[in-house]
Amino acid sequence: MARKKEFDPDVALTKAMQFFWQNGFENTSVRDLISNTGVNFYGLYSSLGDKREIFLKSLDEYIKMYMSALNAQKVDYQDVDSAVVSAFDNIFAFLNGHGHIGCMVCNAAIEVAPTDAEVALKMQAHREQVEAYWRSLLVKVLEKEELVKPENIVHCAEFLCTQVYGLSMLLRAQSSQALISRHINMSAKLADRLLKGI
Amino acid sequence: MARKKEFDPDVALTKAMQFFWQNGFENTSVRDLISNTGVNFYGLYSSLGDKREIFLKSLDEYIKMYMSALNAQKVDYQDVDSAVVSAFDNIFAFLNGHGHIGCMVCNAAIEVAPTDAEVALKMQAHREQVEAYWRSLLVKVLEKEELVKPENIVHCAEFLCTQVYGLSMLLRAQSSQALISRHINMSAKLADRLLKGI
Repeated sequence: MARKKEFDPDVALTKAMQFFWQNGFENTSVRDLISNTGVNFYGLYSSLGDKREIFLKSLDEYIKMYMSALNAQKVDYQDVDSAVVSAFDNIFAFLNGHGHIGCMVCNAAIEVAPTDAEVALKMQAHREQVEAYWRSLLVKVLEKEELVKPENIVHCAEFLCTQVYGLSMLLRAQSSQALISRHINMSAKLADRLLKGI
Repeated sequence: MARKKEFDPDVALTKAMQFFWQNGFENTSVRDLISNTGVNFYGLYSSLGDKREIFLKSLDEYIKMYMSALNAQKVDYQDVDSAVVSAFDNIFAFLNGHGHIGCMVCNAAIEVAPTDAEVALKMQAHREQVEAYWRSLLVKVLEKEELVKPENIVHCAEFLCTQVYGLSMLLRAQSSQALISRHINMSAKLADRLLKGI
């Protein structure tokens, strides 16, 4: 009978991801990963790989968690403005629920993507998922509204995705609550106009 | 007679700034600063301070250079759209002229601002200067246009500043030229609508 593992690799990965999210790639040592996961070097290496591999797996885990959180939250489909503001509030709650550490994808985009093409690709994958989320939200809220050109929905979703990344940067850089609120309200107002092509 | 310094602290600071801009704070060691400036440890420390002090001075130097570059470039004041696109092109040329390393203020906002209030304040100071730049650009382009409410100019300048930071993040994360162009054109289009209050 194979010897039972003394740790759960999924639990260890979640702990590693939290540490990377807070501290970034360079600022995290293998020693930090060992002390934060409670798993020794050999266990960590054999189940999750080296530091870069654990970082890449952490990014995947983060993106999965991010999208699940987004999809699990209720959106107010009354009109475009309410829908966009409520979705932003959900993203804000998810990011903020982990203590003002911004978005791990944005942090990695700034810190690691310039020198690691695989990380840049993961950012692109996240962007595609977030844009798809916005498109489906917009289609849903527009069901009862006037006819909107499909390309306006595509452009609006791309715009909103970049605004979400902007929000993440504002959050991480300790921006004021007032600036963050204005950013969210402005994004919603502009999304509405973009959809209507005015 | 005092012994002549064997290096120019301003030149050393510019070299240190370039290295921080490319590599970030954590990823830069004092050894890197020594080898890139060509100044020994004692010279560096006595003229510019410790690593954090050199980083803070580098941020100031970067912000000065950024604003000078922006103010020195020509803007096409024909209409709001042309003015905003040409200003974005100038910012893009400045950032890109240093080799796809994004904006040092944004990089620092993500990497250092969460744990260093002084860096967060410098980001805020940069934001204020960029917003003032946009306000004065908008006032100039609107001289011959219809009356625009002053608060629309303030909101539009704030929006454009966040869009500039978004551009910087896209650049650093190796985004496609097509996405960057759409981001710039969208920002210009929305700025125009924001000003007109529609």
